[in-house]
Amino acid sequence: MIEHGGNTCKLAEELGVPEDKIIDFSASINPLGISKKVESEMRKELKKLHNYPDPDTKKLRKKLSQYHGIDPETILCSNGSTELIYLIPRTLKPETVLIPFPTFSEYERAVNSSKSLKIVQNSSSLNNIKPLNNVKQKQPSTIVNLPLKKADNFRINSGEFIDAMQGCDMAFLCNPNNPTGNLLKKNQVLKIAEAAKKSKCFLIVDEAFIDFRPEESVIKAVQDNPYLIVLRSMTKFHALTGLRIGYGVFSPAIANKLKKFKEPWTVNTLAQKAAIAALGDNEYADRTFRLIAKEKRFLEGSLKETGIEFYPSDVNFYLLKTRGNAGIASKLREKGILVRDCSNFRGLDSSFIRVAVRSRRETKVLIKTLIEECFQIENR
Amino acid sequence: MIEHGGNTCKLAEELGVPEDKIIDFSASINPLGISKKVESEMRKELKKLHNYPDPDTKKLRKKLSQYHGIDPETILCSNGSTELIYLIPRTLKPETVLIPFPTFSEYERAVNSSKSLKIVQNSSSLNNIKPLNNVKQKQPSTIVNLPLKKADNFRINSGEFIDAMQGCDMAFLCNPNNPTGNLLKKNQVLKIAEAAKKSKCFLIVDEAFIDFRPEESVIKAVQDNPYLIVLRSMTKFHALTGLRIGYGVFSPAIANKLKKFKEPWTVNTLAQKAAIAALGDNEYADRTFRLIAKEKRFLEGSLKETGIEFYPSDVNFYLLKTRGNAGIASKLREKGILVRDCSNFRGLDSSFIRVAVRSRRETKVLIKTLIEECFQIENR
Repeated sequence: MIEHGGNTCKLAEELGVPEDKIIDFSASINPLGISKKVESEMRKELKKLHNYPDPDTKKLRKKLSQYHGIDPETILCSNGSTELIYLIPRTLKPETVLIPFPTFSEYERAVNSSKSLKIVQNSSSLNNIKPLNNVKQKQPSTIVNLPLKKADNFRINSGEFIDAMQGCDMAFLCNPNNPTGNLLKKNQVLKIAEAAKKSKCFLIVDEAFIDFRPEESVIKAVQDNPYLIVLRSMTKFHALTGLRIGYGVFSPAIANKLKKFKEPWTVNTLAQKAAIAALGDNEYADRTFRLIAKEKRFLEGSLKETGIEFYPSDVNFYLLKTRGNAGIASKLREKGILVRDCSNFRGLDSSFIRVAVRSRRETKVLIKTLIEECFQIENR
Repeated sequence: MIEHGGNTCKLAEELGVPEDKIIDFSASINPLGISKKVESEMRKELKKLHNYPDPDTKKLRKKLSQYHGIDPETILCSNGSTELIYLIPRTLKPETVLIPFPTFSEYERAVNSSKSLKIVQNSSSLNNIKPLNNVKQKQPSTIVNLPLKKADNFRINSGEFIDAMQGCDMAFLCNPNNPTGNLLKKNQVLKIAEAAKKSKCFLIVDEAFIDFRPEESVIKAVQDNPYLIVLRSMTKFHALTGLRIGYGVFSPAIANKLKKFKEPWTVNTLAQKAAIAALGDNEYADRTFRLIAKEKRFLEGSLKETGIEFYPSDVNFYLLKTRGNAGIASKLREKGILVRDCSNFRGLDSSFIRVAVRSRRETKVLIKTLIEECFQIENR
């Protein structure tokens, strides 16, 4: 398995401290935690957990259809959006898949585990491809990697994306992108989606973090574009991380095809109930927007003061570039502070770390420790 | 998806009544519901659900290793045992798979969705195979179906199973078997496992219901047999049905291979915590054994009085054969009583229903309604 952020239990065990003593900047979760309303809904449900979950997640799909103004038959709920990231390539069996980098590493793992693939690099289009080391050749399928440029703040250029998509039958677009935190505007994503439709390429837009910029979602465009797939997660903004809940929106034909391969009961009862309650809690959403905006200003200001380089972010996390301080993540670990070491993101190395927006108190601890450690490393 | 038992929400919606008004004999779950100790453990955890679940399920595997006296590195925890039923054929890519029938229908669906297969019938060995209608020929893989004989109470004969297993590289053995409820004794299962080892065929023993007869488990034999795989579920005896938790025991090599394909975070935090608490609750286990034994006697006695045919059961459910009353399950549905219509089990039809062992009060309602409906149908 790939090492991700949020493994607080592992660090707690390493340090021999209780899990709640770990300050976790590595998982990009709403610092408010689960809403009180959701928690009280869950308490009511604990006595009913001897029943099977609804395998069809009917009530949740109905709530989602009202929330987004879309057809419930186009929605599939899942064990986090991760279940769908794996189910889609397994079902649609793409031959050539475009994945920009750096981005969420599970896309590549999912495509690779769906069949044997060879991997090629792509600087901007399919013309100058060169094979990497990890070449497997059982079947003539390919991952086309589109590198995002550091000099351009890792921004996705829709024209380059469309060029690279030619000859592909599937493409992943994480928007806002993880771990870089930047957003491609809705009109640009729709331009890519139109091109995908024209070239009959399935475009999977992973909007796991779009709840922080909901006006930029392309979820309603799925109804007019059978090649557009939108994935959503309720484990970030709504903090239902430990419960696992996500969903996808598909054309009815693709939704039906996926149902044929989908495993039953993957979405537990509590996740279904919690998600319904979370979608109705506007007060929690408003508090989240205010808190994140305020703490983003504080974090950005503090980072500027320390001189640590960071990339512009539209969401609740930031990609930081430390000056050659390759060991910074492990230095912070020793002090019980978990940040996301980005060395296992294709295109990044361990001088990059990703940190979430958290409470004022926690951010102050992070900044103080960052200053101490960076200073120590630089003066060694 | 395949229609299974336990879909109380669907029937509640059909009848326009609250879900807790449905009497559910269709899901074979411990009638005690979740233990009080487990419930109180879960209450403590609700505030921490904004953290990711441990993807490695380390604490739960440690507890399971103590509970069973096995190596924690040989255990993989899963979203119900269903996740593993799908993951195993997807990873090990068998060519020819033995599945007796009637049995749990997800084995066939899992194998079919792992690749394109042709299906053949087998009366006792591979010699007289004949193709069915649903032949797909993309890859040269085969499901060998071994019919269990009604006249022999659907008992599995280990000699016939071993014969049918020749030429197969994977075999499923549900023990005790669902939906028939009968158990193949441990020494017979071990005989099959030895034969599987000799012929290099992976034998997957699904012990989802073995907690009702724990002394018959072959879980400890995995350490000496790399071709033996044992699946367990905590959604039946421990009633963690709505939470989804199961596990499998494998040779270390196979466990490592499966980890490469396993999706991250499939086991939610609450399921992990609840399972640990459930394994430590001996008082609940004792109460369950006493209750099930007592209510099995009552149910069997009542069925004998009514003259409804049933098959011997070692577990908490019974397979019933109603005399040509093909509509009995839907008749009961109309009255808010859910039983498992067995018409979508290969080898059975809708004159077979499966009913769980439940409380005295509920069983009395079932028997009374069964008598009324059978009488009405017979006199029509």
